Amino acid sequence: MDASYTAPPGNHDPDVVVLAENVEDVIESVLYARENGLPLVARGTGTGMSAGAVPLEGGLVLSTVKMKRVIDLNVNEKWIQCEPGLTTADVKNAAAKHSLFYPPDPSSYKISSIGGNIAENAGGLRCVKYGTTKDYVLGLKYIDADGNLQSTGSLSNQVDGMDLTPLLVGSEGLFGVIVETRLALIPAPRATYTVLAHFHDIYRALEAIYTFLPELVPSVCELIDGEVIKAISQHDPYPFPEGCKAALLVETDGEEEAAKLELNRVMEVLEDHDALEIHTAQNPEERERLWNLRRLISPALSRIADGKMNEDVVVPIGKMATLIERVEEIAKRYKVLIPIYGHAGDGNLHLNVMYKKANEENRIIAHEAIFDCFKTVIELGGTISGEHGIGAAKNQYMNLQFSEDELNILRQIKHAFDPDNLFNPGKMLPPDSS
Amino acid sequence: MDASYTAPPGNHDPDVVVLAENVEDVIESVLYARENGLPLVARGTGTGMSAGAVPLEGGLVLSTVKMKRVIDLNVNEKWIQCEPGLTTADVKNAAAKHSLFYPPDPSSYKISSIGGNIAENAGGLRCVKYGTTKDYVLGLKYIDADGNLQSTGSLSNQVDGMDLTPLLVGSEGLFGVIVETRLALIPAPRATYTVLAHFHDIYRALEAIYTFLPELVPSVCELIDGEVIKAISQHDPYPFPEGCKAALLVETDGEEEAAKLELNRVMEVLEDHDALEIHTAQNPEERERLWNLRRLISPALSRIADGKMNEDVVVPIGKMATLIERVEEIAKRYKVLIPIYGHAGDGNLHLNVMYKKANEENRIIAHEAIFDCFKTVIELGGTISGEHGIGAAKNQYMNLQFSEDELNILRQIKHAFDPDNLFNPGKMLPPDSS
Repeated sequence: MDASYTAPPGNHDPDVVVLAENVEDVIESVLYARENGLPLVARGTGTGMSAGAVPLEGGLVLSTVKMKRVIDLNVNEKWIQCEPGLTTADVKNAAAKHSLFYPPDPSSYKISSIGGNIAENAGGLRCVKYGTTKDYVLGLKYIDADGNLQSTGSLSNQVDGMDLTPLLVGSEGLFGVIVETRLALIPAPRATYTVLAHFHDIYRALEAIYTFLPELVPSVCELIDGEVIKAISQHDPYPFPEGCKAALLVETDGEEEAAKLELNRVMEVLEDHDALEIHTAQNPEERERLWNLRRLISPALSRIADGKMNEDVVVPIGKMATLIERVEEIAKRYKVLIPIYGHAGDGNLHLNVMYKKANEENRIIAHEAIFDCFKTVIELGGTISGEHGIGAAKNQYMNLQFSEDELNILRQIKHAFDPDNLFNPGKMLPPDSS
Repeated sequence: MDASYTAPPGNHDPDVVVLAENVEDVIESVLYARENGLPLVARGTGTGMSAGAVPLEGGLVLSTVKMKRVIDLNVNEKWIQCEPGLTTADVKNAAAKHSLFYPPDPSSYKISSIGGNIAENAGGLRCVKYGTTKDYVLGLKYIDADGNLQSTGSLSNQVDGMDLTPLLVGSEGLFGVIVETRLALIPAPRATYTVLAHFHDIYRALEAIYTFLPELVPSVCELIDGEVIKAISQHDPYPFPEGCKAALLVETDGEEEAAKLELNRVMEVLEDHDALEIHTAQNPEERERLWNLRRLISPALSRIADGKMNEDVVVPIGKMATLIERVEEIAKRYKVLIPIYGHAGDGNLHLNVMYKKANEENRIIAHEAIFDCFKTVIELGGTISGEHGIGAAKNQYMNLQFSEDELNILRQIKHAFDPDNLFNPGKMLPPDSS
């Protein structure tokens, strides 16, 4: 299992588990799996949200969590070379020691493995300014389906289109087992400013975002809707103002003066859009306090219901208002709660369909609601996954978004890397309809 | 022909030329080429540097230069949707009208087509801070080998790894004909500062770069070597200081205060590294004057010899000094001049092997020198192309850089898109050795 709300039915026990300690162990595992006709599922720390690391058909589960060496860190060229088992936080910390910064920050960054981040092209709060994992992977070493060590890329952003690296990032373990990576780092921003605003109307908050985005790129732009606020209010003594139906957490970063200028402009826009209250942080303690609201979300939602289908759809920024309206309609139609929060700066919203795990009918209705949400997202020109991957949780929806021609090309690319379907079968690609 | 120094032997005349005015024309051309067994070579304005748009085997040349509509520009979501025949400058200008910025700037940006930029993953002076074309292509529409309209991507940077867009960018016309694209724009930087420094020793200039890069990301970082300076000095009354053997042009941009702070830090580092002279620009006229040196390079080199093999290799930043030393040795060994300049901020240097066109022996020696340069680059962990593409100019060197396994995967990907090898045959991929 992993951190996803649902793996397809079945017990999903592996036949063999390997805790690889080095490249040789990985090669041996691939050869063993191949010789014994076992599917091979590579796995990091299991924080995935789309059942990507769940061995659907049993087989060999190959964990790389013990492979956590920092092989090299080059301050002047700004990169770190490391093994896949390192946590995202380990990478960030190693960089921070040299005043460098590794920006991707999935919510699970303290425990998620960097190999898993690469396999899923993990995002996070800072994507709006800094992009996702794919923007930082300079090169990879992986073990291919024949047990051979292959390497791709490794240089700066000036490598031509022939590089296979971008194809491997986000390939969800279908093409090979990542055993080493070189990640780009950037100079750490010298200053960060934080502002939290409350609104009586989520659409005003969206208009505010829509207004400041053409002028500046915030480093964080998180939206929280009225359902989430209601869930938090039920138990936490959080001081929401009267009539608060939305909250917006924005950060600007960079050089001191520039970040402050941008913050001021954001605050001006928030005021213009009738924010009920605006709080800014002047020091790390205050910053922590503002961020606390974001952290209350998950525990609050888990108190509403024990089941939560957390989908991370993306729509064009200008379509977020329509999406929120339509999701409210879907929630009413199916009589389910769908609290929404997420990375509004790039249209990546988390739709949380709440349900009771024990109630099978309840679970089916939740699935139907999700399906309607996905259809709406596609209609609005969006995608069914922003940062969680497809895995086994969403591959049945792939043909909502991809044409049969596209899927055929993807199947052929999979075949080019892995002709015998050794790696992570049943994931990402929908079952062939032919 | 295009702007490359050499297309392989042959007259390369097309059998049919189509000036497409719309998508229907492109579809018709693809179907015509397919029915008549003609290879199809898509072409923009012909500014390519690797013979990518040269019809090696004749066939149908399909120009998209007449397809130059701006279809939409969304200020709040920061993107432009346009046809491939628009010039890079057109895209920049359309963005600038809304205080937005399209960063990629190949030297030919005033006349290069955006479709060609995408096909070649064009770079430019500002890559060091802003990345290459691939970082801006959100989505594409293309006509596939069956004459069908396909579309990929289109959203923000939060789309998962399944997206075929990154694969199409830099695919050099091998996968389909691009008929429309959506490009990301960014808020225009509010201020730009420029500094030009002269050095008596190129290695001191490299050390300076190496020193400031971990702390800040300049928007331009161009290096010019002693051979280039000698070439300019021969005819231009450029006021180089006595003993000048290298020049470094650096820009910082962003918010006023931040850009100024970064400039000051760069100047401090330049002084610490014994710059002979340091000039800064306080206004657009002065800026133009500093940039003038960069513009003198091409005409000056063309006065040394009428043939110039301009290669754009990339090496790790820390290996630029070694590369320059080794290229000097190669130049001595072959008795050729190899002036060097380029985008030192990301290790992308232009090695210009000068030769006399009329002298066949001279041309062969130049080719041998280039081959030695490529081998050195690969040895240093570099790549044989940074921004010019592979095309027909460098595909014979592909196996210096790519393993046979990698090339096989690339061949299969080509086959997935274009099983009958209709599009741009003979480019990028080396001839199959099997």
